[in-house]
Amino acid sequence: MTSDLVSKEISAEEAAELIQDGEVLGVSGFTLAGYPKAVPTALAKRAERLHANGKPFQITLFSGASTGDECDGALARAKAIKWRAPYQSNPDLRSAINRGEIFYTDAHLGIMGHLVRTGSLPRPTTAIIEASEVTSDGKIRFTTSCGNSVEYLRMADRIIVELNSIYGDALCGIHDCYLPELPPYTHPIPVVNVLDRGGKDYVQVDPKKIVAIVRTNQGDTIRPFTEPDAVSKNIGGQILEFLAHERKKGRLPAGLPYQSGVGNVANAVLTAMARDSLQEPVSLFTEVIQEAVFELIKADKLVGASGTALTCSADAREYFKQNAATLQKKFVLRSQEVSNHPEVIRRLGVISMNTALECDIFGNVNSSHVCGSSIMNGIGGSADFSRNCLLGFFMAPSTAKNGAISTIVPFVTHLDHSDHETHIFVTEQGLADLRGLDPVSRAHKIIENCAHPDYRQQLNDFLDYSMRSSKGKHIPFALDRAFNMHLDFLEKGTMKE
Amino acid sequence: MTSDLVSKEISAEEAAELIQDGEVLGVSGFTLAGYPKAVPTALAKRAERLHANGKPFQITLFSGASTGDECDGALARAKAIKWRAPYQSNPDLRSAINRGEIFYTDAHLGIMGHLVRTGSLPRPTTAIIEASEVTSDGKIRFTTSCGNSVEYLRMADRIIVELNSIYGDALCGIHDCYLPELPPYTHPIPVVNVLDRGGKDYVQVDPKKIVAIVRTNQGDTIRPFTEPDAVSKNIGGQILEFLAHERKKGRLPAGLPYQSGVGNVANAVLTAMARDSLQEPVSLFTEVIQEAVFELIKADKLVGASGTALTCSADAREYFKQNAATLQKKFVLRSQEVSNHPEVIRRLGVISMNTALECDIFGNVNSSHVCGSSIMNGIGGSADFSRNCLLGFFMAPSTAKNGAISTIVPFVTHLDHSDHETHIFVTEQGLADLRGLDPVSRAHKIIENCAHPDYRQQLNDFLDYSMRSSKGKHIPFALDRAFNMHLDFLEKGTMKE
Ligand SMILES: CC(C)(COP(=O)(O)OP(=O)(O)OC[C@H]1O[C@@H](n2cnc3c(N)ncnc32)[C@H](O)[C@@H]1OP(=O)(O)O)[C@@H](O)C(=O)NCCC(=O)NCCS
Ligand SMILES: CC(C)(COP(=O)(O)OP(=O)(O)OC[C@H]1O[C@@H](n2cnc3c(N)ncnc32)[C@H](O)[C@@H]1OP(=O)(O)O)[C@@H](O)C(=O)NCCC(=O)NCCS
Repeated sequence: MTSDLVSKEISAEEAAELIQDGEVLGVSGFTLAGYPKAVPTALAKRAERLHANGKPFQITLFSGASTGDECDGALARAKAIKWRAPYQSNPDLRSAINRGEIFYTDAHLGIMGHLVRTGSLPRPTTAIIEASEVTSDGKIRFTTSCGNSVEYLRMADRIIVELNSIYGDALCGIHDCYLPELPPYTHPIPVVNVLDRGGKDYVQVDPKKIVAIVRTNQGDTIRPFTEPDAVSKNIGGQILEFLAHERKKGRLPAGLPYQSGVGNVANAVLTAMARDSLQEPVSLFTEVIQEAVFELIKADKLVGASGTALTCSADAREYFKQNAATLQKKFVLRSQEVSNHPEVIRRLGVISMNTALECDIFGNVNSSHVCGSSIMNGIGGSADFSRNCLLGFFMAPSTAKNGAISTIVPFVTHLDHSDHETHIFVTEQGLADLRGLDPVSRAHKIIENCAHPDYRQQLNDFLDYSMRSSKGKHIPFALDRAFNMHLDFLEKGTMKE
Repeated sequence: MTSDLVSKEISAEEAAELIQDGEVLGVSGFTLAGYPKAVPTALAKRAERLHANGKPFQITLFSGASTGDECDGALARAKAIKWRAPYQSNPDLRSAINRGEIFYTDAHLGIMGHLVRTGSLPRPTTAIIEASEVTSDGKIRFTTSCGNSVEYLRMADRIIVELNSIYGDALCGIHDCYLPELPPYTHPIPVVNVLDRGGKDYVQVDPKKIVAIVRTNQGDTIRPFTEPDAVSKNIGGQILEFLAHERKKGRLPAGLPYQSGVGNVANAVLTAMARDSLQEPVSLFTEVIQEAVFELIKADKLVGASGTALTCSADAREYFKQNAATLQKKFVLRSQEVSNHPEVIRRLGVISMNTALECDIFGNVNSSHVCGSSIMNGIGGSADFSRNCLLGFFMAPSTAKNGAISTIVPFVTHLDHSDHETHIFVTEQGLADLRGLDPVSRAHKIIENCAHPDYRQQLNDFLDYSMRSSKGKHIPFALDRAFNMHLDFLEKGTMKE
């Protein structure tokens, strides 16, 4: 490191002192990948000290998506977050939001950076970005995610770099820091194939904006990959079977890329592909490249993977480092504005697979809010993909909480994806292809194919009652009983009658 | 007309005989513009005769959007429609759907043609297309809309042309019949400015597929333009004021194109622009170019307008014909896959304005279903635009049915646009800029700014009760009272307490 950069090297605690009460911070990080660790932890400690002395200290935290406990968890526990956007998954942060203590704006991940750039959301004044390299002329290379880091680096007045050495130069070259210009200067995004690139693998900033460099050597905190459970395997198997059927019918060209959402079931589908001897090599055009991708690589079944984040447990990180030369050619990490861009998703004909919290009998999906009021993680990029994909799956186990909850309900309590755009539901009970069906046919099919047998009668009763009592028969929908199953659950702890 | 074409000229009644029971028909037409008139009317009569003789006759009707009474109305009254998609607005068809007599699939208009092309919906076997020109080598030029006609012409086995002479050659050259290839062969759509074109102004078909040519000389049935009412003018005025404010704040570059939805309020905004002496000339990138566009033209305030349909009353048609040479250079009519394409809407930074049936206090919008069960018209292209625009408005009078209905409700009974993507609500009471707000702040702002004073107390009571009773406080949402206002309306004919 050159002397001008060395002179900016300070401790995390010193860097935390540079942040003002009330500031908007833009941090790197996307779903536990590539988020800053040392400075947010130090900032949380500083907030606690200030609060103990009766002084106010709260910041607004904009990120790519969720960040690790060292950031979201520590800052939430320190009551240092006033406003958070656009996604989270940390238990302590989530609880604080659901107690109404933190403002939280849940946003489509593909549009978050765009909202900031167009002035619909305030501009971060300080960016805290995890980097694997920074040069004295202001070139910054990211670690395991791109997220909204390009946007935040451009817009912030001050940049704090967490220079993380844990990957060495293994990630060098996998980023594509391209961002489309804003209207009226926007041109087509130059991505026609999964691995196409539009920009440089680093971001150029004004080196004078870099106010601190904090050295770290700490990996992303990611649980090791676990074998999918029976339910997830079942759902994954059904999806592969359905895809083969569609291909045979001539409705699905070969070679379209997959998007695979977060969570267990999504991992199971990729694992099933890796293990299926008949499976051709696949491409991923996705948001988070989850660890199951290494199963595909080991089985020689990955053409290439594009995402905005790469989540690696310690084992996967070692594997990546050992095979960096080969793997760098198979991966592109893009800004989430591009990884989740409707233009590219529609162009590539992505096959999308996302997990739902609950689905209703008419075809609506809730990805984000339990009983309509408590945020789980957020809508994430699910709508970016499901709304623009060529073929889209929503999947979930048919019950949650040991059977006390049916994930198929009369009406979703929060609606993230509407009946106009959902294609296919899958639970371990079966698959419902909803394309082109009218509402009544959808309802019958979802209850028959996807609902758990324990709940079919209740759902059919609702549908029958709706058919009789509803004013319009296009969507027979009894408003007076729409949420009865949820109300039962809230009162008695189970949806069972 | 050359002799080979003359030999295909038959009457509408003869053409109707070519259609089989159970067929899927793909017709031209988009919101009362450019739909076939003579053949559907004759087909309805044929169905009635067959039904009178105890014979079955029903078809599936796929269109661009709604069609006129000569098509949707006549066929619905004749009970000749089994399945209809993707949009409608005819009173008789709507009633039959809401009685549960006709299957109806409501779809995003920008995706309908894509669903048919990718095999998610069945392929039309006969296309009935209104044309202003047809040549012996199979070149077809459309009339007042493009809709899904390119798709249906390509996919159908048989083509029936309604050759309509009412526009003469006045529409010659305004169509752009470009369609992107399907994945995996899709390339960027070559539209970077509102008037850019990607294809030819005619469609080339195999002339052997043209089985009939039916001559007509009948205009689209469109009510003459009427002066906007006071409420619409008020809403239009607020939108213009807000746009000026955003521009002054540096958050909105000049020159972005507008999308303006169907209905009275949308017309009022364009009219207000035409009459505002400070208004710069505007571009439209929209779905339906409504008649208010001529106000802009007369005021010399139109740069150019792109849409998939042009709705002209008899007066407007005469105006168009007289000024065809100039107007042809100001208009492009595209396939609805392109006029409503997320790629182009996002690229151009469209400012979108659509009318809602009802909005809820959390920011969700219902565009399509009264009390969750009866279809009004359909979601149309509203989500194509609102989801991908740079800045989006949903507007509605704060009450309907002489005040018996509040259009601001605790929870929408059908959800077309979610709180994740709605930006700004406007009623004649005021405007609520929801961008970046958390759910509780949104609720306060919508009630304060947009609800009618007669309903504010009820809405605030719901919010207060929800704050107390809801398990999660992120979205305080009392499931047990969510639809009470609607239930009151259904029981007592008014939402008033
Ligand atoms: C929906 C989502 C939470 C499921 O995650 P998952 O890890 O596959 O699912 P799990 O089955 O482990 O469920 C997670 C939790 O939700 C609970 N849950 C699931 N369905 C529920 C329901 N209908 N009601 C209440 N709780 C429910 C589970 O019981 C579990 O709770 P626990 O953590 O206390 O055990 C997750 O996929 C998500 O956040 N999705 C939204 C964002 C998204 O789709 N991103 C991808 C876009 S690229
Ligand atoms: C919502 C929509 C129906 C409003 O149309 P409009 O002509 O501006 O509105 P109006 O105020 O005349 O309302 C139309 C009817 O709905 C009724 N209505 C409005 N709000 C209502 C509500 N919340 N509950 C019940 N009825 C309602 C009106 O009373 C009126 O009924 P009437 O015909 O019996 O008098 C229309 O814009 C639409 O269909 N939108 C969806 C599609 C779309 O947005 N397309 C544009 C995309 S490019």
